[in-house]
Amino acid sequence: MAKHSVRSEHVTWFDGDVNHSKRAVLNRHKGGVIWFTGLSASGKSTIAHKVEHTLHDMKCVTYVLDGDNVRHGLCGDLGFDESDRKENIRRIGEVVKLFVDAGLIVITAFISPYRKDRQWVKEMVGSDHFMEIFVDCPVSLCAERDWKGIYDKAMKGQIKNFTGISAPYEPPECPDLTIRSEKVDVETAADQVIQLVKTHNWLFL
Amino acid sequence: MAKHSVRSEHVTWFDGDVNHSKRAVLNRHKGGVIWFTGLSASGKSTIAHKVEHTLHDMKCVTYVLDGDNVRHGLCGDLGFDESDRKENIRRIGEVVKLFVDAGLIVITAFISPYRKDRQWVKEMVGSDHFMEIFVDCPVSLCAERDWKGIYDKAMKGQIKNFTGISAPYEPPECPDLTIRSEKVDVETAADQVIQLVKTHNWLFL
Repeated sequence: MAKHSVRSEHVTWFDGDVNHSKRAVLNRHKGGVIWFTGLSASGKSTIAHKVEHTLHDMKCVTYVLDGDNVRHGLCGDLGFDESDRKENIRRIGEVVKLFVDAGLIVITAFISPYRKDRQWVKEMVGSDHFMEIFVDCPVSLCAERDWKGIYDKAMKGQIKNFTGISAPYEPPECPDLTIRSEKVDVETAADQVIQLVKTHNWLFL
Repeated sequence: MAKHSVRSEHVTWFDGDVNHSKRAVLNRHKGGVIWFTGLSASGKSTIAHKVEHTLHDMKCVTYVLDGDNVRHGLCGDLGFDESDRKENIRRIGEVVKLFVDAGLIVITAFISPYRKDRQWVKEMVGSDHFMEIFVDCPVSLCAERDWKGIYDKAMKGQIKNFTGISAPYEPPECPDLTIRSEKVDVETAADQVIQLVKTHNWLFL
């Protein structure tokens, strides 16, 4: 991963600095992001946590970033209109970059509806450190599953700019993997992701 | 560390979730932040990187957050007036919380001039996961050392709101450690920090 130019200038004295390669040797895997995208209630977060669990059991250093730990903290000042969504993904992208630089396998579960935003994160962290997983599920089934009742509110117009109802979702054109979450169970979906991590040579186990 | 209430509600299904304790067992240390505070050019970043290097050699999972990797990325949209400094530290605090939750020993090197901001971070991550290190150095010596020439610009009024010249610095009242960087070398300073990490029982080595 390219170092930030300002950082590069500054750290010329720290020849022995801990860098991405040294972290990868310690952790026995490289840093990267497994980026889930899909509608609300499509199953992203459930699969993401299952993947983390499996990787943790394999002694990987992992973390899940999702609405629960980001939307109420770092991005707690942002709403859901297009400009706030853009800033939301920008901050998430910058945090992902830090986590990947720190050597973790970070697993994100955000709707992330816009192709250009996902592409921006991919370019920033580097394509060798980025995997895009599309959790594909019909909006009708997401609405049926939705235990929080937010689809119902969106359909009644009580929530504005709701992805899939009143705001667009742009599916990935070439995801690394598509999971049809109405057809596979969580274990099978997670196994497919782990296989992908292995074939991409992220693990030195 | 207390879990976010919303997260707690949501993850009742994920009984096997990877949590802070499980990460600590894998890493053989708990997550926490070593928070350096002090004037620009006082030596924070140099000592922080030395501490990271030593901890990395001890097989700890570490990361340094400083102006170089935060100010140009996550906080690239912010300036230096009081409200932007507040938002800067708020975002850094939220990112630190994520890193600590992820089980890392994160080492921060920000001027962080206001007591209440540092206190806010301490309360948020939990006092058992927070150490405050004051890098104490006279402003005249910081200005002398300053290879970037920013003190010179600040004294000429070309940079506004510059801590120690035209903006206040509030030294910690009860830091976990004070390093007088004009009197000790980097190795000695870093050793003092490592001793502190050991006496606080952060390491299970």
